[in-house]
Amino acid sequence: MNIEERTRQPNAMFPMHPKMDEQLAQAFSANEDEEEKHIQKVQNAFLYYGPYACQRLKRSMDYLNSLSGEDQHMLSKYRAHLTCVRTCIDRNQAVIREILRERVLYPDPDGSPSNPTSDRWEFDEPPPHVRHGDMDQSIALDDADVEPLKILKAQSTLKLIARDWSTDGALEREQSYKPIIDCILEYFKPSDYELKEIKILVPGAGLGRLTYELACLGYSCEGNEFSYFMLIASNFVLNLCDYENKYVLYPWVHQYVNNLRREDQVAAVRFPDICPLKNPPKGHFEIAAGDFLEVYKTPHTYNCVATCFFIDCANNVIDFIRTIYKILVPGGIWVNLGPLLYHYSDVSGQNSIEPTFEDLCIIMESIGFVIESSRTGIRTKYAQNPSSMKQSEYQSLFWVCRKPDPFEEQRGKRKASREPHDLIVRADTDEEEEEERERAKQEQEQEEEEQKLAEAEINNETEMQDLAQPT
Amino acid sequence: MNIEERTRQPNAMFPMHPKMDEQLAQAFSANEDEEEKHIQKVQNAFLYYGPYACQRLKRSMDYLNSLSGEDQHMLSKYRAHLTCVRTCIDRNQAVIREILRERVLYPDPDGSPSNPTSDRWEFDEPPPHVRHGDMDQSIALDDADVEPLKILKAQSTLKLIARDWSTDGALEREQSYKPIIDCILEYFKPSDYELKEIKILVPGAGLGRLTYELACLGYSCEGNEFSYFMLIASNFVLNLCDYENKYVLYPWVHQYVNNLRREDQVAAVRFPDICPLKNPPKGHFEIAAGDFLEVYKTPHTYNCVATCFFIDCANNVIDFIRTIYKILVPGGIWVNLGPLLYHYSDVSGQNSIEPTFEDLCIIMESIGFVIESSRTGIRTKYAQNPSSMKQSEYQSLFWVCRKPDPFEEQRGKRKASREPHDLIVRADTDEEEEEERERAKQEQEQEEEEQKLAEAEINNETEMQDLAQPT
Repeated sequence: MNIEERTRQPNAMFPMHPKMDEQLAQAFSANEDEEEKHIQKVQNAFLYYGPYACQRLKRSMDYLNSLSGEDQHMLSKYRAHLTCVRTCIDRNQAVIREILRERVLYPDPDGSPSNPTSDRWEFDEPPPHVRHGDMDQSIALDDADVEPLKILKAQSTLKLIARDWSTDGALEREQSYKPIIDCILEYFKPSDYELKEIKILVPGAGLGRLTYELACLGYSCEGNEFSYFMLIASNFVLNLCDYENKYVLYPWVHQYVNNLRREDQVAAVRFPDICPLKNPPKGHFEIAAGDFLEVYKTPHTYNCVATCFFIDCANNVIDFIRTIYKILVPGGIWVNLGPLLYHYSDVSGQNSIEPTFEDLCIIMESIGFVIESSRTGIRTKYAQNPSSMKQSEYQSLFWVCRKPDPFEEQRGKRKASREPHDLIVRADTDEEEEEERERAKQEQEQEEEEQKLAEAEINNETEMQDLAQPT
Repeated sequence: MNIEERTRQPNAMFPMHPKMDEQLAQAFSANEDEEEKHIQKVQNAFLYYGPYACQRLKRSMDYLNSLSGEDQHMLSKYRAHLTCVRTCIDRNQAVIREILRERVLYPDPDGSPSNPTSDRWEFDEPPPHVRHGDMDQSIALDDADVEPLKILKAQSTLKLIARDWSTDGALEREQSYKPIIDCILEYFKPSDYELKEIKILVPGAGLGRLTYELACLGYSCEGNEFSYFMLIASNFVLNLCDYENKYVLYPWVHQYVNNLRREDQVAAVRFPDICPLKNPPKGHFEIAAGDFLEVYKTPHTYNCVATCFFIDCANNVIDFIRTIYKILVPGGIWVNLGPLLYHYSDVSGQNSIEPTFEDLCIIMESIGFVIESSRTGIRTKYAQNPSSMKQSEYQSLFWVCRKPDPFEEQRGKRKASREPHDLIVRADTDEEEEEERERAKQEQEQEEEEQKLAEAEINNETEMQDLAQPT
């Protein structure tokens, strides 16, 4: 299979392809086997999602069965609930089989990806050693080529589908995406620009909703994503879901703790809340697979880079910031929202540095960015179970940086950047800001008053001098 | 060393001892070596806290040194910050050495625990292969008998000292302890009771603050704790700190992510905010070491059991609830606050069931408790770094259960228990409750109206009958 075949997508409305320059394409082609193996591992994680979840459930059931009759009697509703949990896992697995059914990203060379007979992986059926509907099944997980950490990623993918493509995720999208969208609409006003000429890149596109929303406004949008979990799932939502709310997921079924009600664990979420196939965006829209640092090397390409919960995914965040600076056209902007949960911090075998927001301000300005505005304390939940007794949220950062345009700079249109310590302004201190502004205004008025007084004194002196002068 | 020697505490104002009945004492004595080994592991975790933290820090510094000169220049303040982090780790380790200095819990047989020459472990000095003040030190952690998970517990212990015994922890204590204290003051009013005769047990006493506060009010209090991390640290605060705010800790120094400012990671916390030695409680106060289920078997012993972030620490929560019921005197109460973060859920090799709050209500009533009141959604933070960009809190449960007193029941003083589904009442729905009460009142009034009407009708009928009767 060569690169062209790999990137061919016969029926996809929204292209999803590995994006690469010539050099990378050669390297990629050489490492094709390794890449295939990696994809196989991701697919296996999806495929063994169910058996793995059932194995965990079975441990609970076994322990329950070992308890005294009296205890079991008190837990009879809980026992029925565990059966219900089992049903939800089966249903999740069925949706996952749908997601895996069409391997559009890497179809077989004969171009008939949906023909099950040419499929090396039979996603319609569970693995032969798994009998469904039976809690007591023996699951030969030990033999499977599947990593527990990847299974957790398959579970997370379900939560992220709910975040990006269900009505249940509306609040989280409002918190995370709206500030970015509003900012871009402000900088590239539909009244001032031909929006299809404004090229926006969204690195770390995930399930693709932010990129889709920006494309719906008319901008020319490209999402970039590295994780095959995300790529496989977003391709399903973007190219294969044919009507609204077709599928049901149970994203919280793996949360056994901190449940008030049994029904909280088995809450259903429908997706997609909007069908991209039926609602294609006005603007260009594509998702490109690949490592952000490897793929994006052409300078002066994008008018805007929008990053949401992304910049903390680097070993060295400076590399990300430098690349963003490079690919922006002069005068282009970078809009960012998210915390600094450096993903490689304390991950064994991974390098990591973890600069604070203060340090990032120094880095951004050293690289050449002008920090146009920044806020702290933006309340953003991320794949949060709304019924859980544990509630977490990020006090996210939000900033807009501009890559200076030398010509505009010469015309003196751009103001000088502020000192980094001014940049830490909490979003929830509007009142304090108002007070600060009031105080500054008063100080200015006082200064003006003093200026007038000083001027008056000079005038006075002049008058005195005039008076002193012999006429 | 026999049991008596092990429990002797020559200079301790507040007794800390392994609590056990005769049978358990024999078993304990037999397993003394194993117990010693376990304690040694905990002490090693405390002892290697510093070297372990420095090893992690060194990885960051090594990576930093490998970056380009340009990158390093932008990170020069960050580099200085890492040196500051190192200083904080050293200072934390110095406090830990103080904490370990006096092994009051298990002093040597000669009764001179503070004599360093009789000490098998030299806590004053770092291990010989660790050179302090040098980032490049070679740490022979591989040879040490120390588990990474236990090191994390040593780190947590520092945070819990801040929660229980610093002014910085005041808000969290207000959230978690005040509802319990207020409730006990309501049930056992100082005006109605001789408080020293009210025996309160606090299982999962942790660093001991809740138990101490209750004892300060005059109640006769016993804390029970299983973890030697907690026991060693609480013994230090209770029996060895001789004045307020003597020590400084840096509880957030291990959080490298989600920091706005460099200073957030190295924020100092002083402890203890109150010195128990100088402020001994009015009521009896002791901490007993041991497994709650093993130690507490004598029925009808306590007037009150107060559990805070405790009941989810069981493999089978029913065992905890049954034991609490057993040890309460008839008419005694159980006050609980906390989430349901079942600690053994998804812990390899551990059995666990995870009943929801709904299920717990069934269990509590099946065992015999009368649920007097319950609330959900009590906002409680737990060892939360206040400056972090990630903020988590529990929507905790709070309930008061009564073990019925047969004699009182006969006098008909106790009302019947409510249905479990009524028990889920959010704390933040006071208005709704008010509305509900209003509605219930209106319904009652309507019923009374209807009753009057019905009575009137009967009277009417009677009248009609009367009328129909031939006079």
